[in-house]
Amino acid sequence: MTKLWLNGEMLDTDAARIGPSNRGFLLGDGAFETLRYETGELRRWPRHSARLQGTLQHIEIPCPDWNRLHDAATKLCQANALERAMVRLTVSRGPSGAGLAPPVGTEPTVLITAAALPTAPAALSARIVESARRDARNMSSRYKLTTYADMLAARRDAVRQGADMALVLSAQDHVSSADSANLFWVKEGRLFTPDLSCGCLPGTSRAALIAALKAEGEVVIEGRFSPDVLMQADAVFVTNAVRGVVPLSRVDDRGFSTEDSQLSRMKALCDVAL
Amino acid sequence: MTKLWLNGEMLDTDAARIGPSNRGFLLGDGAFETLRYETGELRRWPRHSARLQGTLQHIEIPCPDWNRLHDAATKLCQANALERAMVRLTVSRGPSGAGLAPPVGTEPTVLITAAALPTAPAALSARIVESARRDARNMSSRYKLTTYADMLAARRDAVRQGADMALVLSAQDHVSSADSANLFWVKEGRLFTPDLSCGCLPGTSRAALIAALKAEGEVVIEGRFSPDVLMQADAVFVTNAVRGVVPLSRVDDRGFSTEDSQLSRMKALCDVAL
Repeated sequence: MTKLWLNGEMLDTDAARIGPSNRGFLLGDGAFETLRYETGELRRWPRHSARLQGTLQHIEIPCPDWNRLHDAATKLCQANALERAMVRLTVSRGPSGAGLAPPVGTEPTVLITAAALPTAPAALSARIVESARRDARNMSSRYKLTTYADMLAARRDAVRQGADMALVLSAQDHVSSADSANLFWVKEGRLFTPDLSCGCLPGTSRAALIAALKAEGEVVIEGRFSPDVLMQADAVFVTNAVRGVVPLSRVDDRGFSTEDSQLSRMKALCDVAL
Repeated sequence: MTKLWLNGEMLDTDAARIGPSNRGFLLGDGAFETLRYETGELRRWPRHSARLQGTLQHIEIPCPDWNRLHDAATKLCQANALERAMVRLTVSRGPSGAGLAPPVGTEPTVLITAAALPTAPAALSARIVESARRDARNMSSRYKLTTYADMLAARRDAVRQGADMALVLSAQDHVSSADSANLFWVKEGRLFTPDLSCGCLPGTSRAALIAALKAEGEVVIEGRFSPDVLMQADAVFVTNAVRGVVPLSRVDDRGFSTEDSQLSRMKALCDVAL
């Protein structure tokens, strides 16, 4: 039986209970992180815990004890005999009465799950969909919240059109991100990515890659770009904490090389940095 | 012990369990309706069940048996000895593995809860907040989903500024709605409301009020309006299924009459229509 960690206890998954009045379930009122566990370590724990802390502070959910959470996540991977795992930390506001007003005196719900780390695909295909727009003025675009319906709709839309994942635009028609990853592209040896004003999440891999390049004296050009600019790229890739760098072999009807020399370099950098 | 109805069973609330892998909890992947129960009846059941059915079809969650749900909700109010209740139907996609891809062969989770109907306040105050923008291109603006973080943030922002509720704008700077209600205003005897392209939810009370007025040969002017237009109104009110029509006594620093003759008429119409 797979084990998980819920509110301080390691439990069999079937024995774990989220109450039916949990705001996470009723209103998507929570935040999460997904990270990798490898060689006995939670990869980039400081970055993930800092992002989750910032998110929880912003949505006014009390923060858990980070050392305790780190310890619990590590032990959970060990208890499930996982050498390489995908770990998810979910914190919701906890149980509540009816309505939008935040409950008083309720304890947040803290859930940690771990599953075998999936093998990263060699490449993915993507569709630019019209079914969701990101907006940096919205909390759900700036923070990694459990309010994911728009990205889920985008993914369904892309899959319906034969692709693996969706790329979404901002309310202002700029390229924003993939449905579950940040987006980068290479053009004439230079690296581009949408900036945060385009409503993409401040991805931990995105930040680590930008920092790694900066340390080598290189610049990632963050800006607001139309889909046309993306379509003229030499190579395109997406990043997230679980899969690292994955090239896109296709966006809409345009094929992209997955053998670009810059891509190989990014993958190598990410293997170190991520 | 308060009872609820979960996946076909009436249970004590403390005995009801949502699994920790429920997509409703992990990703806000579900939809809901809130309606009134009075004089032995679920008010406007056809409108609510039709809207929920349309939502579930759109997000590709299998629909429950509506007659069974109607029966369960009615019995639940009786079991909880509630003469006047606020009933919430929540349908989530159900348990899932990791990631965004919809689970195959999972059963939706169907939850019904009932609580005493709160007394509608005589009036509310509101703040136009900048912390959330609606966008009719997003599923979460067009359908009543359990992906509510942006409206929750808007509410917190309004409360922090001393108001009862938030009014939010569209991505295009038009007035959209209140955080948990549709918005109407009266100006020189005419009635106005944002149209659905402004990213407001297609409220059941909104629809019922528009239909009731139309039946009397009257028009509600649906359009795209700037906040300035709203601020020049003679009276402002919000509508939802639980509270009916509630006047706004204040929006930002401007006070509004809650004694407007049109307002009384809307309340009377709503008492019949809602």
